[in-house]
Amino acid sequence: MMATLGATLGKAGEGEAEIHAPILPGSLQQHGYAHAGLTFSIGDSAAGYAALSVMPDGAEVLTSEMKIHLLAPARGDVLIARGRVIKPGRRLVIVQADIHARADGTETHVALMTGTMVPILPG
Amino acid sequence: MMATLGATLGKAGEGEAEIHAPILPGSLQQHGYAHAGLTFSIGDSAAGYAALSVMPDGAEVLTSEMKIHLLAPARGDVLIARGRVIKPGRRLVIVQADIHARADGTETHVALMTGTMVPILPG
Amino acid sequence: MMATLGATLGKAGEGEAEIHAPILPGSLQQHGYAHAGLTFSIGDSAAGYAALSVMPDGAEVLTSEMKIHLLAPARGDVLIARGRVIKPGRRLVIVQADIHARADGTETHVALMTGTMVPILPG
Amino acid sequence: MMATLGATLGKAGEGEAEIHAPILPGSLQQHGYAHAGLTFSIGDSAAGYAALSVMPDGAEVLTSEMKIHLLAPARGDVLIARGRVIKPGRRLVIVQADIHARADGTETHVALMTGTMVPILPG
Repeated sequence: MMATLGATLGKAGEGEAEIHAPILPGSLQQHGYAHAGLTFSIGDSAAGYAALSVMPDGAEVLTSEMKIHLLAPARGDVLIARGRVIKPGRRLVIVQADIHARADGTETHVALMTGTMVPILPG
Repeated sequence: MMATLGATLGKAGEGEAEIHAPILPGSLQQHGYAHAGLTFSIGDSAAGYAALSVMPDGAEVLTSEMKIHLLAPARGDVLIARGRVIKPGRRLVIVQADIHARADGTETHVALMTGTMVPILPG
Repeated sequence: MMATLGATLGKAGEGEAEIHAPILPGSLQQHGYAHAGLTFSIGDSAAGYAALSVMPDGAEVLTSEMKIHLLAPARGDVLIARGRVIKPGRRLVIVQADIHARADGTETHVALMTGTMVPILPG
Repeated sequence: MMATLGATLGKAGEGEAEIHAPILPGSLQQHGYAHAGLTFSIGDSAAGYAALSVMPDGAEVLTSEMKIHLLAPARGDVLIARGRVIKPGRRLVIVQADIHARADGTETHVALMTGTMVPILPG
């Protein structure tokens, strides 16, 4: 899915991750903005990579629940999702993500997400 | 986006709408299930069409916020999202959607969504 | 807190629980309706008891996250919260609750909640 | 309700507000921590006052929906909720609140809330 959307992982740190995705013609809704599904997908992925960054090697994460607030139309040529860990944990990791749309070098805050990731530990 | 995902509108009634989407290879995540972004997209669309069904002709709706609980892996060949209006309103419409995955004729409940739609009334 | 609010556990079944709370003068907000905090508290408790009903004896539950939609003013003399399990699990239990206000024998749907409970198993 | 809980409004600024509430014996749940209902109530109030701070005189706000993540037990003698506006608007105001518990001068982050407020404009 990430490949279908053209998304790539940007810089990542301890408890943080960034995802970039082009706003392609196939990702638009009826008003010519990026579809909420694209915004959700890259925000969810950024939050997931942020959660992975605080877990041991070989671990995976599943999204249990996620809430998204859509703040403004996602106009522009690229979406940037920045995820971060609010509270790490062995059973649950609470995460947040902010998604911005970039047009002509200016970023607009288009979505805020908060959610719960479930770690799947190796072995 | 709905076209990219291959989604189609199924039956709709007063305060209800159903969306079907095939689970295509391009919609899978790393474990071989439908990506949460696909599940979110068709649930959001079903909830939006349900909201439209209680509004005057020519109206549109925007999603303000949406929460999704992912309940089980979305395995199978088709996703079915059923949206319904919990509370209609002039300023806000509160909606819910249930998403099931169908495999070999059996449906599994894969997601529950609740959210807020904002009506955009015509002229 | 449940005692402070005067809340009592009504009927409970497998995956279901009901809580009743009087709408007392101390629970009102500035418009004379029950405060959202009261509605949240009894909905959260009903959801928690519903989760407990599908767990082994001696288990406890903690609320991890909860979303509430406030649908109508909570006018009347009693609030009734009905919780139910959407998906049981060893690590997480997904729950829902509907809260109604009763005035002159008529119930109004005042809130919808969905959330995540974490089981704390004995020993 | 705010009076019942002993809550008071602390400093407020443009798009921000702070509420303090003592953790009283009547606000405890079965494990001796502040009940989620208290945490929700003061977070909701702080978010509401933050929304009011960006609206014209005489306006009021109603909470439409609110999600709370409970991050840690609310142990201590006082809860502090800090609300802020994420996105102002004529129809909807998107808000966030962080709630900390203070014990022996140390603050612990106990809850994160995001929600939607509906402005009720005067006359």
